[in-house]
Amino acid sequence: MHSKVAALDLGQDAVTLTAHLVDVPSESRQEKALADLVEQALRGVPHLRVDRDGDAVVARTALGRAERVVLAGHLDTVPVADNLPSRLDEDGLLWGCGTSDMKAGVAVQLKLAAGLAEPNRDVTYVFYDAEEIASEFNGLKRLAERHPDWLAGDFAVLMEPTGGRVDGGCQGTLRVEVRTTGRRAHSARSWLGENAIHKAAPILDRLAAYEPRRVEIDGLVYPEGLNAVLINGGHATNVIPDFCTVTVNYRFSPDQSERQALDRVRDLFDGFDVLVTDSAPGALPGLSHPAAAAFVAAIGTAPAAKEAWTDVARFAALGIPAVNYGPGDPTLAHTREEHVVAASILEAETRLRTWLTA
Amino acid sequence: MHSKVAALDLGQDAVTLTAHLVDVPSESRQEKALADLVEQALRGVPHLRVDRDGDAVVARTALGRAERVVLAGHLDTVPVADNLPSRLDEDGLLWGCGTSDMKAGVAVQLKLAAGLAEPNRDVTYVFYDAEEIASEFNGLKRLAERHPDWLAGDFAVLMEPTGGRVDGGCQGTLRVEVRTTGRRAHSARSWLGENAIHKAAPILDRLAAYEPRRVEIDGLVYPEGLNAVLINGGHATNVIPDFCTVTVNYRFSPDQSERQALDRVRDLFDGFDVLVTDSAPGALPGLSHPAAAAFVAAIGTAPAAKEAWTDVARFAALGIPAVNYGPGDPTLAHTREEHVVAASILEAETRLRTWLTA
Repeated sequence: MHSKVAALDLGQDAVTLTAHLVDVPSESRQEKALADLVEQALRGVPHLRVDRDGDAVVARTALGRAERVVLAGHLDTVPVADNLPSRLDEDGLLWGCGTSDMKAGVAVQLKLAAGLAEPNRDVTYVFYDAEEIASEFNGLKRLAERHPDWLAGDFAVLMEPTGGRVDGGCQGTLRVEVRTTGRRAHSARSWLGENAIHKAAPILDRLAAYEPRRVEIDGLVYPEGLNAVLINGGHATNVIPDFCTVTVNYRFSPDQSERQALDRVRDLFDGFDVLVTDSAPGALPGLSHPAAAAFVAAIGTAPAAKEAWTDVARFAALGIPAVNYGPGDPTLAHTREEHVVAASILEAETRLRTWLTA
Repeated sequence: MHSKVAALDLGQDAVTLTAHLVDVPSESRQEKALADLVEQALRGVPHLRVDRDGDAVVARTALGRAERVVLAGHLDTVPVADNLPSRLDEDGLLWGCGTSDMKAGVAVQLKLAAGLAEPNRDVTYVFYDAEEIASEFNGLKRLAERHPDWLAGDFAVLMEPTGGRVDGGCQGTLRVEVRTTGRRAHSARSWLGENAIHKAAPILDRLAAYEPRRVEIDGLVYPEGLNAVLINGGHATNVIPDFCTVTVNYRFSPDQSERQALDRVRDLFDGFDVLVTDSAPGALPGLSHPAAAAFVAAIGTAPAAKEAWTDVARFAALGIPAVNYGPGDPTLAHTREEHVVAASILEAETRLRTWLTA
């Protein structure tokens, strides 16, 4: 142990445990102290096998059950915004960086890991690093590449904050730059130049006229979106511009592969340079799997389509259907006013315990 | 005299005098040393009345001639680019900051001011500060406001580098921002937002379709230009943009007033917010005036329409037709490789002397 902070007591209630986790700062790529505490606490639990890679920790039961489910959560937070240490107010709100996104979920994972010696399904608990920053650093991505066997399972729950709702699957996301070029000239002699901004007019026309798809899968509706998010062109107020770049973000339904999504975008912008800058696949909700159906029944609320891209897509890429479910309000994530309703942490723990023991 | 540099000798040839002027650095707002030298030298010329305002110096003959002409030039330069002191090479090129723009022209003014005791027209020689920076500091603007009588005349020659050609009048220039607004949303839930970049499509369509005017005045053709010079919209690659700003530069023929030019632009972008960020009137060439016609005949080359906006418009605003004419290559202005052909300085001096004595 390099950390000077107190060891985690997994016998505490989930709210107190959440506060303890929050009070160990763990901005992305600085998760070591917290990962050490998690590893140490889980190594003390006799019914778990514990593995570690970098600052990711994976603990598993090995009971030979017919199904294995995965509960996953990230240890890192966005940068602290002068909102530590944590504070539990008289209205039962726990305040502080990472309360909602997603140390409340991590606390629930830890409580279940320590408390369920004989769950009805084998369970894999995954705690990983660097979810809040560029994908190249993502701990779940690294585990999928180095130790796919640690992540094996029939169904996964990513415990990101969803306000206690089950969010199924996720959209894919594709970003491209659609570009025009021209020729610079002084704007007093514009006929010597070629205006790249004027040449971008059809790009915006096609975007404005585009009718986005709405796709239904497993009873969930995934509405797509195809939008310019940035536009930039020109050098100075007296120069005919020789470039214009429109950055387009396509959020596509998980019925399409990344390739199909790109083909659709290339078709739309036929005649223009299209450069891919970012692409991530969507994830099917997989709610028809028995373990998923039992999960939805245990949670007891109607599932919805997840609109944002999340790490469930990494499980989908491994062939594991996955959903998002966790305490905490997703709209408070990354805000200075981040907090979580203490009772919602206990409720999530109870519902998951029901699913894994009933 | 606060300067430590040697007094100007107006008996030297114009090339040597140019080199002397160049070797007194005079970046905009640091013209005092050079203005002091110019004032001192001109006060020693018995046939001139000399006035000074800040770092502008105005010297006039008062012979009671039927016509008065103005020769004007600025004393300041852009920042020195490691290209001082001046150097005359064996090919007859004088190198250094300000050689072309426009101390060669200033040297010609000084030679004529000292040498022409009895010109055929009364002559006003204007030397002013701060032409190379924002208009608010412009010395000619200040003189026009404080001492319009010092600038009075029937015709003016601004001795900016034109490669020895007469450039008549100038275009006006108008800059506006044409803006759209929308509503931000996460791009995964784009239906909650309103895309300001998509709404800019008609702005670019109208610009791309616009047919610029070509206007002939006094035999000179002024081709207009109406162009997007900058476009900027959006915040991040996952946010539906709530603003888009297209900066448009309209270079208009001097047959239109600023107001008429703005009306034309507002009509074109009907339905959009249009914010004026910059406006300057054009200047008619005025070549039908007798003094101007005699000038063109003395220079001996066909005049052309001036495309860029220049300080001739300040004379036009005072009701004084004006042209640009001077030694030096305008394309070398503001470059580190700035230089002037020594012989072109002497040629300009000879032609102007002919005009003012023949």
